[in-house]
Amino acid sequence: MTAFKELMAFQHRTEALAQVAGRLGWDQETMMARGSAAQRAEETAAMQSVLHARRTDPRLGEWLAAIEDGVLDPVGQAQMRHIRKSYARALKVPADLAEEIARVTSRSQGQWAEARAAEDVAAFLPVLEEVVRLKRLEGQALADGGDVYDAMIDDYEPEMTAAELQAMFEAMRPRLVALRGAVLEKAPAPKLAGNFPEAAQMEMARKLAEAFGYDLNMGRIDKAVHPFSSGSGHDVRITTRTNPADPFNCFYSTIHEVGHACYEQGIDDAYALTPLGQGVSMGVHESQSRIYENQLGRSRAFTGWLFGQMQDAFGDLGVGDADAFYKAVNAVHRDYIRTEADEVQYNLHIMLRFDLERALMGGDLQVGDLEAAWNDRFEADFGYAVDKPSHGVLQDVHWSVGLFGYFPTYSLGNVYAGCLHEALRRDVSGLEADLAKGETGAATSWLRENVQRHGGLKTPAQTIADASGVTPSPEPLLAYLEEKFGALYAL
Amino acid sequence: MTAFKELMAFQHRTEALAQVAGRLGWDQETMMARGSAAQRAEETAAMQSVLHARRTDPRLGEWLAAIEDGVLDPVGQAQMRHIRKSYARALKVPADLAEEIARVTSRSQGQWAEARAAEDVAAFLPVLEEVVRLKRLEGQALADGGDVYDAMIDDYEPEMTAAELQAMFEAMRPRLVALRGAVLEKAPAPKLAGNFPEAAQMEMARKLAEAFGYDLNMGRIDKAVHPFSSGSGHDVRITTRTNPADPFNCFYSTIHEVGHACYEQGIDDAYALTPLGQGVSMGVHESQSRIYENQLGRSRAFTGWLFGQMQDAFGDLGVGDADAFYKAVNAVHRDYIRTEADEVQYNLHIMLRFDLERALMGGDLQVGDLEAAWNDRFEADFGYAVDKPSHGVLQDVHWSVGLFGYFPTYSLGNVYAGCLHEALRRDVSGLEADLAKGETGAATSWLRENVQRHGGLKTPAQTIADASGVTPSPEPLLAYLEEKFGALYAL
Repeated sequence: MTAFKELMAFQHRTEALAQVAGRLGWDQETMMARGSAAQRAEETAAMQSVLHARRTDPRLGEWLAAIEDGVLDPVGQAQMRHIRKSYARALKVPADLAEEIARVTSRSQGQWAEARAAEDVAAFLPVLEEVVRLKRLEGQALADGGDVYDAMIDDYEPEMTAAELQAMFEAMRPRLVALRGAVLEKAPAPKLAGNFPEAAQMEMARKLAEAFGYDLNMGRIDKAVHPFSSGSGHDVRITTRTNPADPFNCFYSTIHEVGHACYEQGIDDAYALTPLGQGVSMGVHESQSRIYENQLGRSRAFTGWLFGQMQDAFGDLGVGDADAFYKAVNAVHRDYIRTEADEVQYNLHIMLRFDLERALMGGDLQVGDLEAAWNDRFEADFGYAVDKPSHGVLQDVHWSVGLFGYFPTYSLGNVYAGCLHEALRRDVSGLEADLAKGETGAATSWLRENVQRHGGLKTPAQTIADASGVTPSPEPLLAYLEEKFGALYAL
Repeated sequence: MTAFKELMAFQHRTEALAQVAGRLGWDQETMMARGSAAQRAEETAAMQSVLHARRTDPRLGEWLAAIEDGVLDPVGQAQMRHIRKSYARALKVPADLAEEIARVTSRSQGQWAEARAAEDVAAFLPVLEEVVRLKRLEGQALADGGDVYDAMIDDYEPEMTAAELQAMFEAMRPRLVALRGAVLEKAPAPKLAGNFPEAAQMEMARKLAEAFGYDLNMGRIDKAVHPFSSGSGHDVRITTRTNPADPFNCFYSTIHEVGHACYEQGIDDAYALTPLGQGVSMGVHESQSRIYENQLGRSRAFTGWLFGQMQDAFGDLGVGDADAFYKAVNAVHRDYIRTEADEVQYNLHIMLRFDLERALMGGDLQVGDLEAAWNDRFEADFGYAVDKPSHGVLQDVHWSVGLFGYFPTYSLGNVYAGCLHEALRRDVSGLEADLAKGETGAATSWLRENVQRHGGLKTPAQTIADASGVTPSPEPLLAYLEEKFGALYAL
């Protein structure tokens, strides 16, 4: 037991340092003046070097050899599972490859931003080719002879495979394409019109965050270019953004990030600063942000409450009643951009990226053919052509920073949210009446009890299966979407 | 040369990590929600543990043994001087003593705050006794048989001794007591009266910061309970505070912190993230903050400009003209509090603390006798009795957190500022006309060129001697104060 105690004490320090590194990233996006970027790069590199040294520290190998997991309690065994996996992973990737990836992706992100602004795909391809080459090398190192893309997915969604995702997506795609087509034949949804000052939007964003149980006594809300949640444990902070013409962007980004933040804040305090003290996977994380945002936040009951709140805050909203407001919140538009997509179309954006990046990593698609493949697939699923690269292959930052295997976790999160939502409706009585009063406490308590508090104790799929009582499948999500949008658009 | 290069690369990382630890402290005072304090304590401890391990790393000993300083250029030799000193210091203090001091002072700070709020000296004495005992042990470890208090001063003001400070203060005390007495026999200075909204104060604070050359493209200004400057290199941030009844508190705190920040931002970029890349001592640091705040910011010429700016921002100020405004800025009051003291009385507060803490560390004064000693000395120098502990021995946080040897650097900074100011007036023509237009560029360029850019290249005293052309002495400061306040109060 001495080795286990020493290992956990070492790990505790590593987790605390990882929190500091994360806080530094938050500071860079919210507080740091632009002129200090070069200095910050040195500070970040120093923190990463400390973390890398700890994650490959030879003492870890000694402790791991000395510990017999079987004698530990289930929590201890779960801790060991995470630590053994993380140590093995750290040793697999050669240090010079990791450094080269860091160097190239730092450069490629800037080149992507420039190429996107100039609508110039060709300017981005050479560096993307380099990123793809390096990430494939990394994937090969991680895969140990197995599937390269599976090894990448495992970084974000442990135990998940491309084959499982493919089966899931094949069940979803035809039904979502059909639903989308049917909805877009109908009259468009009403639109908000009014005066939405940014300070009042931020005021309402705080109110919404508190309505969903975000603890501002431990975190904070700031503005940033891209909304995000940052940190684990108590000090979990979120960002949002405001657009004077579109208050829903601010409000639903806020609720989404609150879902992420509440997951972290909701993990059992006993797991703080241990490998169990963080959301177990990107997919489960996204299930929390999406169920807060969509199944709860965009429900008829909750939007009824929000309609009144917004009238009080902004006066006339340009929509006649709460039913029209509900339609405006859930409007489905012809559009190109994933991050602005509604619930119906969102997953179609993801499936496109999943197939393309899987082919890139498998060597079945060349970087030079990527744009054409994107545009063909988009037209097949959405029914119209991409009009410019910033609406197509250049729209997301992910590939430029080497995030391959990450996109599918967004849709997996939606699938998980569908399963959880079905169980939530079954288990929590009076939910509609609560939501109609802006009260989410019963729903969020159920999520905390059944999902959030466990942190990394179980595998992601087991976490969802135990909470929802079913093996995760896309069926509940599809049924929910077909019912909700069938009613909204009178299909 | 290989050893020197390796040492500097190692040191570069350590300095970057120290910056991160400092930024974490800034975050705690300005951004962090109170409910995350326990988590932050873990994060801070993890960073300190990393820094301690690096500062006592055995590789440092090997490099130091391998390097012959004499073959290096003067900059390299100065770097070695700092690194050898820091390594020797780190090895002198036993790790368990350092940890116990950290633990006790973290607790004692809270007890001090409670005792101050309750005006209950007795509640603070037991923990103060413990702090004094531990700090004396640390001082003995550092002193290696020499004077304990000298060893403590050396942490903040390298190469300075208590005997030198005593001689300096003995020359100052009678003249300041006499000046104070003469001034307070005269009619009191006019007072501001008006409406000073806090948002408009912050607006003016930013204007003043920019007027004094603070680069907001690299730093930022936030509100905090106590004004401070944080960071080295480019990313140097300041805080200030607002009091609707007293805009001068905000404005002169801001200018003071801008002096500290500009010193750090003004250091030669070639020294960034090396031991030379920070202000060389607390005394030289305070010389910059005080010359910005007082000799420049509270001059007749600059206050003439500020009078117009404040009239534009706030309307009627309740003082008739720029001469009356200048008197209001430089008002000397009967008061108890060091941090609110004017230029005449400030150093009397410091001398009192210097004598008491020196006696505490030398064992000539017991903690139980501290309050009586404070009150006796206060009445002797100020002419009236302390009315309550928060106006007396409980007013400063320093002793509760173990800062012994720090107080005298405040007065040393004033003495240094006096020397620099005399040279500045001699070297920079047209200064009065510039300041009357709110332009400080010629003065701050002179300070940057002669003081700031050198960072830790020379000793503190040599830094001031080279810049001012004289061996540092209190004479210029005393002559300046007698002339300024003699004229202001028609003595």
